[in-house]
Amino acid sequence: MGNLSRRAMLGATGGLIAGGLLKTQADAITLDETAATPEGPPSAPQEAPQDPTKVIGRFTSDLGERAPGEQPRRIINRPSPSSSSRTPLQDLRGIITPADLHFERHHAGIPAIDPERYELLIHGMVDRPMTFSLSDLKRYPATSQLCFVECSGNGGAAYRTNAAREVTPQQIDGLTSTSEWTGVPLSTLLREVGAHEDATWLLAEGGDAAVMGRSVPMEKAWDDAMIGYGQNGEAIRPEQGYPARLVLPGWEGNAQVKWIRRIEISDQPFMTRDETSKYTDPLADGTARQFSLVMDAKSTITFPSYPNVLPETGWWEIRGLAWSGRGKITQVDVSTDGGDTWEPAELQEPVLSKCHTRFRHLWNWDGGEALLMSRAVDETGYVQPALKTLIDARGEGTSYHYNSIRPWKVESDGRVFFGQAEAQ
Amino acid sequence: MGNLSRRAMLGATGGLIAGGLLKTQADAITLDETAATPEGPPSAPQEAPQDPTKVIGRFTSDLGERAPGEQPRRIINRPSPSSSSRTPLQDLRGIITPADLHFERHHAGIPAIDPERYELLIHGMVDRPMTFSLSDLKRYPATSQLCFVECSGNGGAAYRTNAAREVTPQQIDGLTSTSEWTGVPLSTLLREVGAHEDATWLLAEGGDAAVMGRSVPMEKAWDDAMIGYGQNGEAIRPEQGYPARLVLPGWEGNAQVKWIRRIEISDQPFMTRDETSKYTDPLADGTARQFSLVMDAKSTITFPSYPNVLPETGWWEIRGLAWSGRGKITQVDVSTDGGDTWEPAELQEPVLSKCHTRFRHLWNWDGGEALLMSRAVDETGYVQPALKTLIDARGEGTSYHYNSIRPWKVESDGRVFFGQAEAQ
Repeated sequence: MGNLSRRAMLGATGGLIAGGLLKTQADAITLDETAATPEGPPSAPQEAPQDPTKVIGRFTSDLGERAPGEQPRRIINRPSPSSSSRTPLQDLRGIITPADLHFERHHAGIPAIDPERYELLIHGMVDRPMTFSLSDLKRYPATSQLCFVECSGNGGAAYRTNAAREVTPQQIDGLTSTSEWTGVPLSTLLREVGAHEDATWLLAEGGDAAVMGRSVPMEKAWDDAMIGYGQNGEAIRPEQGYPARLVLPGWEGNAQVKWIRRIEISDQPFMTRDETSKYTDPLADGTARQFSLVMDAKSTITFPSYPNVLPETGWWEIRGLAWSGRGKITQVDVSTDGGDTWEPAELQEPVLSKCHTRFRHLWNWDGGEALLMSRAVDETGYVQPALKTLIDARGEGTSYHYNSIRPWKVESDGRVFFGQAEAQ
Repeated sequence: MGNLSRRAMLGATGGLIAGGLLKTQADAITLDETAATPEGPPSAPQEAPQDPTKVIGRFTSDLGERAPGEQPRRIINRPSPSSSSRTPLQDLRGIITPADLHFERHHAGIPAIDPERYELLIHGMVDRPMTFSLSDLKRYPATSQLCFVECSGNGGAAYRTNAAREVTPQQIDGLTSTSEWTGVPLSTLLREVGAHEDATWLLAEGGDAAVMGRSVPMEKAWDDAMIGYGQNGEAIRPEQGYPARLVLPGWEGNAQVKWIRRIEISDQPFMTRDETSKYTDPLADGTARQFSLVMDAKSTITFPSYPNVLPETGWWEIRGLAWSGRGKITQVDVSTDGGDTWEPAELQEPVLSKCHTRFRHLWNWDGGEALLMSRAVDETGYVQPALKTLIDARGEGTSYHYNSIRPWKVESDGRVFFGQAEAQ
């Protein structure tokens, strides 16, 4: 199916599975179960009969529930209005993030907005300033796009040479999720209001108590920007911007303003609080890198990772996620010796532009210490940088766009830790 | 974005929206609110403040919830072990069906299966009979496929010349849903067990109390069949086959055996109860059409439909879904005069193989009676048939594969009803 030819598949496993030699996540021990999903309340377990074919099962329902043993949860950063929660990357499969597990990042909590009273104003350098109700927005020809949304601060814990060792993929990189977003192309609305051709920037302003504001180049607005009201087939969830948000495929999450209530068209950026005091990258030379809107290519290993323990030597499958705001992932290389040598991983179908892409790579662990790394390459040829390269370019003081290579240290006793400290 | 050029977009709306002339679902009155979602318990409404920018919102959570006013629900056919529930097609947007709204069809209820004790046996014409635990299955290189699953009995209410008028799209066609399915290609497992080259059929047997069994040609097994354990990014839901099911993209749902516990390889079909007493189409000449496994192209209008009421004449957007088990939808035509004349509808991105595809078409209602129809064409050139054509080919007595054109009658007072009776 897809790019997995019979030959490639045989080559990939090399008989390891038939021989019982390939070990993966399911075989690994978890060092600290609570570290991965500390918020997960145990669901009342449903007693499985000895032989389910002898017992009539429960009936249909108007709304499904997860299996008792499958209760992935977001991790909450801290209970406060300006906070975040993180997607359990190591617990998921495929590329879609279930809507109730999509990461959150709010600056003043999740506003309660009445969809009947919701309005989006578009004004400024336009022929006809207009307001659009939610039903107005839904009148227009809709489109859907599968894409990731990532907080530009994702991976902060990895951007330290003395980074903590006991952190999970969810804790490091859980501020990214992939959804099908549905809405009206922003270009349609720009034509409706008669946006001026010489306009170069727009202000996107949210209807939350932070009145989150960001400047967005008109080039993106005319390209693939969308006023989204649908997420994975249903209405956008409240924490993702209900009833409508800006969607900018491949760009940093905070610019994809949620609960959007106003767009002002201009010929210069607005220099809002949210793009000057925050979401600007200070550089080592005292200047700053502003409007770093595209999310550069990144990859992260989800297995093995903390708190996994490899109980025995032999063949293990290294697995992870890669994504790029510039298009498709074309290659992911994996190193098991701290970057001295690299081998290409396999990419798992589907490989879609600006979406999470899964990779995997077989590794024969000899029982010695190992430093695992992955390195993504996207269709523009951009290569995910080493931490030192990124620090040399940006300095220690930056707070965003931490897309350096993430190392994982395998100890000789099989325990796995985040390996940033060891990678230096 | 995608295939929507600026020119096409302008052409599609023709200034109707700027002029406030285009009316769609949001403007329609609902004749009987409870008919669309009779099972929906009202969620405690969250009070929206007059100005949400002046009130700190609620905090992050470990698991998201839908907005109070957005509570789509499945419709349950009847509370019994052999029953079904239907996806609210008219309430959704985009192409993904949220996992908790995916339709259900069980023959003996939803079994409770312990994933630790789950096993899949593959035997018969193989070199090495093998059993696979769930963790064994997850060891193999995985793949994902976006595709619809549809019950072969979907649309039964439409296959009657005296069909009821007061039925919704959910009630007629709600036994179809689209998901991202993740799992191991069945071809990988067939190589592991050494399936014989002269084998032509396999038996897929479920671990529910119906021990649902279906014969599947090996050609499909070697092609894009999958043992799926993931659905929309998470573990398959219990009602969809947890912990693992057969996925046969584009084929009838019942053959995609849920809770799969056994695959037997053979050189002939097994003629199980579930493919002889059921899931065979009796024909008018006394013979039967068996192994009608592929789902033929179909489309269904989701707006306007019962119980909508069009409150005024003018421009309305006819919207619906189309899909085909043979590949991509290439065209959907819409008629507003009962099939006398047809016009091509627009297809909404993304248009993916064996997935729900959205279409839309502008219609200027003059206030007279109208009979709305849609007609799907797929990439093989297959054209969705009229009811009479299908009845001529299959007879009145068949129980499956009801993919005839679905008519909707618009009365001169704006009320909309299912129009099968009027279409004769």
